[in-house]
Amino acid sequence: MKAITWNQGKVRFVDQSKLPLKLEYIETENPEEIVDAIRKLRIRGAPSIGVAGALTIALIAYHSKAENIKNLAKEITDWIDKVKKVRPTAKNLFYALNRLENIVNRYLSNNVNKLKSEIINEALNIMIEECEYSKKVSEIASQLIEDNDAVLTHCNTGPLATVDYGTALGAIMEAWRQGKRFKVIITETRPLLQGSRITAFELKTEGIPFTLITDNMVGFAMQKRMINKVIVGADRILRAGHVINKIGTYTLAVLAHEHGIPFYVVAPTTTIDISSNIEDIIIEERESNEVTSIMGYQIAPPDVNVWNPAFDITPPRLVSMIITEKGIIRPPFKRNIKNIVSYSKIPVL
Amino acid sequence: MKAITWNQGKVRFVDQSKLPLKLEYIETENPEEIVDAIRKLRIRGAPSIGVAGALTIALIAYHSKAENIKNLAKEITDWIDKVKKVRPTAKNLFYALNRLENIVNRYLSNNVNKLKSEIINEALNIMIEECEYSKKVSEIASQLIEDNDAVLTHCNTGPLATVDYGTALGAIMEAWRQGKRFKVIITETRPLLQGSRITAFELKTEGIPFTLITDNMVGFAMQKRMINKVIVGADRILRAGHVINKIGTYTLAVLAHEHGIPFYVVAPTTTIDISSNIEDIIIEERESNEVTSIMGYQIAPPDVNVWNPAFDITPPRLVSMIITEKGIIRPPFKRNIKNIVSYSKIPVL
Repeated sequence: MKAITWNQGKVRFVDQSKLPLKLEYIETENPEEIVDAIRKLRIRGAPSIGVAGALTIALIAYHSKAENIKNLAKEITDWIDKVKKVRPTAKNLFYALNRLENIVNRYLSNNVNKLKSEIINEALNIMIEECEYSKKVSEIASQLIEDNDAVLTHCNTGPLATVDYGTALGAIMEAWRQGKRFKVIITETRPLLQGSRITAFELKTEGIPFTLITDNMVGFAMQKRMINKVIVGADRILRAGHVINKIGTYTLAVLAHEHGIPFYVVAPTTTIDISSNIEDIIIEERESNEVTSIMGYQIAPPDVNVWNPAFDITPPRLVSMIITEKGIIRPPFKRNIKNIVSYSKIPVL
Repeated sequence: MKAITWNQGKVRFVDQSKLPLKLEYIETENPEEIVDAIRKLRIRGAPSIGVAGALTIALIAYHSKAENIKNLAKEITDWIDKVKKVRPTAKNLFYALNRLENIVNRYLSNNVNKLKSEIINEALNIMIEECEYSKKVSEIASQLIEDNDAVLTHCNTGPLATVDYGTALGAIMEAWRQGKRFKVIITETRPLLQGSRITAFELKTEGIPFTLITDNMVGFAMQKRMINKVIVGADRILRAGHVINKIGTYTLAVLAHEHGIPFYVVAPTTTIDISSNIEDIIIEERESNEVTSIMGYQIAPPDVNVWNPAFDITPPRLVSMIITEKGIIRPPFKRNIKNIVSYSKIPVL
């Protein structure tokens, strides 16, 4: 099951908001529909958002009626600007759109058909590469999981979040496929329940047994020694090792540190943002109804004031290792992240 | 609004499971209906559970058709045993039922009518006293809240949890009534959402502004210095200062400690269990559907494995103060809890 596919001017994707009750696909040639799907978390997960953003631009190029290269380039760059505004935090979206922007600039003096095919080609390359990175990062991170471990993961970082394979959940799935046997504990991940809805769905599909808990049970589970490793994904990683990930990750990191439990972050290097400072990061705050209602059912009095940040920031001192498709990054992150980003694609273990 | 009232052989209570959408009362003379309400959290909160347990026994006495004291005593003690089994963790239930057991023993050589009236009387005393303790404990704990504070509370510890006034939320309400102005942040408190459903309802009713967050946002809120005091209730407090309270409390205590934020526990002395050891404590584990569905709506795939402890244990080293109706208990708790329990009812500040 791939989260997103491209088929001759059409994009097909899983509507993740319908899970776990329905596995529903949407096929569209309408770029607005993809942008809306990203906004409403029908498509979610940093690598999947990046790919969906790229394919939105591929749709524009494919269906453009522009008759000269200048108009086509303007149409594409306007859409790139538009898609950049949909979700502010995940790095992969900006990484993908910046690559397509470079293509526009490179082929500006060429003809309409050449620019169209190069944009589509680059978008598909981004998709293929994100899948490769996910596979690789899952394989490398799977080495950290051993028989009899009890691994906690948060939110959803499986195939649906990454188009294929996964990151943190990819590592869990890969370790299981290798025949290792261990316990998996997943948090439901409020407010949008990506843990109980999507991670639970993916683990069930793979036949991997797991235990579901609410977010506020993690501390007690650690106190009772029910967890010995925490493995999460990331939406953006800064050069000093700050990990921006689904809200609740920082709480897990503090708890893991308190209990002496290693805290691993699994993400492709497309998630790493070497240029931003922590002050530049916009933490997306989402609508209050994500907290006051669940799947449309009201669970709070009307008109209450809500704070609903979608992500939080885990400082480097709480991160044990960052696992990328290029290898494992250990502290000091300030030096080692910079090094690995400039490495070739050969894994460094 | 009182959570529970007694009126000549009938008990009337708020069905807390219907909040916040409906404020519905149930009036019954059927003890089974109250036991079922406690089991299903229609009645909840340690002091309210204690009072509801006592009134269940009062109903038995009131409506008993026993013709001799021996049969009446057996009927009452059988019911006491039965009610003791409904929920294992909150101390107040056992405190109330033990008091009624003592009444049975004291009036065994008396007549049926005397035992009936003494049981009813003692149950009503327990109710009145729990209300008095709640009022007192709210007043004392309100002194810890200052203008411009940002106070976080968890679960529900207001009038509905304590028949009247409250404990942690009682302190917040009392401080507000005194004219202090501060921020209130409440956690939704999964799985049964007592925060977003009941605390939000009670604060709205009182006209106190607040911000609702999910449980996993607390860490980030503390990192951003949005919280400077944590105030929670308790279901049982052990002699060394271990606080057994709603699941998620331990996580809050770890986070508060990490951020240098004081962590206050507000509870009447009827919550203190001087005789149990930590190994004796049964942490209630509840059904998986509390986690896999919300208000009847399924939010996880069918048949997933769930761990659903209703409470957790916060060790004394993470507790800054325990506030009772007899005064504030500071560390070292091992000595000071024992002292205050043996004091008279005069507040010691």
